[in-house]
Amino acid sequence: MKNILILGAGRSAFSLIENLLQNAESNQWHVSICDMSLPYLNERYADNPFLTKVKFSLENDSQLSELVSKSDIVISMLPARFHQKVAKSCLQHSKNMLTASYVSPEMEAMDAEAKKKGILFLNEMGLDPGIDHLSAMKIIDELKAEGAEITSFASFTGGLVAPESDNNPWNYKFTWNPRNVVLAGKGTAQYIQKGQFKYIPYHRLFSTIQTIEIDGCGEFEGYPNRDSLSYRPIYGLERIPTMLRGTLRKPGFCKSWNHFIQLGMTDDSYKLENSEEMTYRNFINTFLPYNIDKTVEKKVADFIGESVDGVEIEKLKWLGIFEETKIGTPDLSPAQALQQILEAKWTLAETDKDMIVMQHLFEYEKGGKSHNLKSSLVIMGEDTDNTAMAKGVGLPLAIGCKLVLNGKINLKGVQRPIQPSIYEPVLEELEKLGIKFVEKEEVN
Amino acid sequence: MKNILILGAGRSAFSLIENLLQNAESNQWHVSICDMSLPYLNERYADNPFLTKVKFSLENDSQLSELVSKSDIVISMLPARFHQKVAKSCLQHSKNMLTASYVSPEMEAMDAEAKKKGILFLNEMGLDPGIDHLSAMKIIDELKAEGAEITSFASFTGGLVAPESDNNPWNYKFTWNPRNVVLAGKGTAQYIQKGQFKYIPYHRLFSTIQTIEIDGCGEFEGYPNRDSLSYRPIYGLERIPTMLRGTLRKPGFCKSWNHFIQLGMTDDSYKLENSEEMTYRNFINTFLPYNIDKTVEKKVADFIGESVDGVEIEKLKWLGIFEETKIGTPDLSPAQALQQILEAKWTLAETDKDMIVMQHLFEYEKGGKSHNLKSSLVIMGEDTDNTAMAKGVGLPLAIGCKLVLNGKINLKGVQRPIQPSIYEPVLEELEKLGIKFVEKEEVN
Repeated sequence: MKNILILGAGRSAFSLIENLLQNAESNQWHVSICDMSLPYLNERYADNPFLTKVKFSLENDSQLSELVSKSDIVISMLPARFHQKVAKSCLQHSKNMLTASYVSPEMEAMDAEAKKKGILFLNEMGLDPGIDHLSAMKIIDELKAEGAEITSFASFTGGLVAPESDNNPWNYKFTWNPRNVVLAGKGTAQYIQKGQFKYIPYHRLFSTIQTIEIDGCGEFEGYPNRDSLSYRPIYGLERIPTMLRGTLRKPGFCKSWNHFIQLGMTDDSYKLENSEEMTYRNFINTFLPYNIDKTVEKKVADFIGESVDGVEIEKLKWLGIFEETKIGTPDLSPAQALQQILEAKWTLAETDKDMIVMQHLFEYEKGGKSHNLKSSLVIMGEDTDNTAMAKGVGLPLAIGCKLVLNGKINLKGVQRPIQPSIYEPVLEELEKLGIKFVEKEEVN
Repeated sequence: MKNILILGAGRSAFSLIENLLQNAESNQWHVSICDMSLPYLNERYADNPFLTKVKFSLENDSQLSELVSKSDIVISMLPARFHQKVAKSCLQHSKNMLTASYVSPEMEAMDAEAKKKGILFLNEMGLDPGIDHLSAMKIIDELKAEGAEITSFASFTGGLVAPESDNNPWNYKFTWNPRNVVLAGKGTAQYIQKGQFKYIPYHRLFSTIQTIEIDGCGEFEGYPNRDSLSYRPIYGLERIPTMLRGTLRKPGFCKSWNHFIQLGMTDDSYKLENSEEMTYRNFINTFLPYNIDKTVEKKVADFIGESVDGVEIEKLKWLGIFEETKIGTPDLSPAQALQQILEAKWTLAETDKDMIVMQHLFEYEKGGKSHNLKSSLVIMGEDTDNTAMAKGVGLPLAIGCKLVLNGKINLKGVQRPIQPSIYEPVLEELEKLGIKFVEKEEVN
């Protein structure tokens, strides 16, 4: 019997836990799931001889140590800032660990000690980062083996509402952490285009978009992620002239979202004065020029450069942002106030489904010809539990866990899933579970 | 004999030191000036029986302690982040201390202990903050005493090049720390206008300007400072409907400076890749869309929305920013690279003079009538040493020092110069030194 320890059992852990339980008997696994709330675990997960539910607090050091010491592998689904504490316990007890989070500098710093202890800390093993790495590296290694010269690689991912549930004028609902959506793009986007470094400040990010088409799924718009440059060495593409990673939204979203950025409503660096008594209408007005002769709607329309009956004002009206509703919460930053207003409108209904779209776009030279290769993935949510997001994040982790427990991955230290020994079996199993890329190639 | 200790003897300390030395014999003062470099002190300050020059390092704790223990008052002209260390030594030896810097939270936290020891830490005693407080509080207290209701207070200050030395198309040269000029306005400007809070994000700051006229000096443009709200309680104007503090520039500057902000060239949050080999032309191009069919000049012109022979492009060309000159320094942020380019063009020549302009604009109700009161100050630099900036920062400190040593200021604890016991004698003495506000009132 092998013991799998899962720390954190929030929404995105559902498909991971379900998949592990489906395979528990045949593999002789026992799964322990840990969360702050035992009633939550009981409500969400039926009793099962291969399952133990644990009321857990990360602040309880001896509990963490005991749980880790009894496990064969640890999967941390906690927020990324807590991985370091879990990892230290794994080092102490020489246990393998998996996460779906970016390798932090603190995680990176544990590489030597993990190698010394002969254990694996496999990170970036979810959707994005995760499936994007697996699928990109497979293509990159294949193209290199064929003697191709890759001249451009762009990769986009979006977590969106499924077409059947897409019934609002923004064509968007929160399918993931709303705070991260409101703060998305803060900082400076950095990428390289035809050998020229490009730096896009936040206030220009949502107007620096490109159109991405996914067969059978329609058009999307993609804006650049913060950091596309650091993946050049990781992907073995140090000298690639063009490399861009980005995020997908439905057409029109970026233009409308940009109004909030331009106005300053996504700022998270200070507290609004008296946000408790402020109405939604006061809130947007506080970012507009003082002018007693114009309505707030007219001032926004002038700011945007359209008429008050234009489509952009209609989208804002639909959010209720011109209404005299009180925010009602003290000490909010603009971003927190905006999030509260959006959550009232953009939360998934019980019957709503989500969707993940991903596309890699390669350009390469081979045999004197220029090639374009598009590799696209669409994951549809099944229900409120098996969302596209939960499947995308959880299934690579579940498969990775199995491979580690069965001794199929022999890497040690702090790793990302960029080696054939990981991406080949994981992509193969994901395909069986319906997560499959479609490739399309053009030769010029 | 009273001992005055001055820590830091950079450019802005000149008028302070000169004024103290002029008054040293009659007041029986001895002045010790401390700097990292003794040759610098020797070159800049002639030997004088009332002066001691000290080679000083803030890292030498025993030296600091000895210097402070032997002094009657300490004036810290060090960068603001070092005041805390000096203040702790002043607490230890129960010595009064003066600075021209904003009261930091760390400084504020020493209030109770300073009061307990019966000593004064008088801060914000320079130009801005400093002279602005003195002159504003005098008017505010007078208006209140007359029973007026102040409905609006706006206050602007600018450090600029004097008209006779104003010979470049930007009408600007560095008369103060260039790094602070390049980073000016970062964050969110916060003020209140007719009872409505207004929050202006950095990317809109330099297009949110108003015209300020100073008699005999012409027109200026003012943009809002970061924090105008926190001065309401300090000035006793908790319920004032309109309050704004801002910075003055010559007309046209803000529009042109805004191009750098819009492009992202004032970003200080990351390092440019290979800044050493980057040319000025590469540097600006890195913030522009990739387009091989357009020159860099054309791309900037399109970005700005004018033609390539327009005045904005001419101003940029004058800076040399389209030239193939190498930056030549590794690991620079965009803001650091921009500063390097600007310093080659905006540094004061040996014969150049600077200028300070300040204006307070009050609106108030009295006797059923609306009044407008303008109070304006112009300080002209005399030479490379007695710059307007050095006089504006140093003379209030020198006068404050005299008043404290002569027992004319009896305040204790962490203070700003907002009390009549400070502003009345200081403004009177400043006037004798040629630093005099001109008031102009209109009744409607």
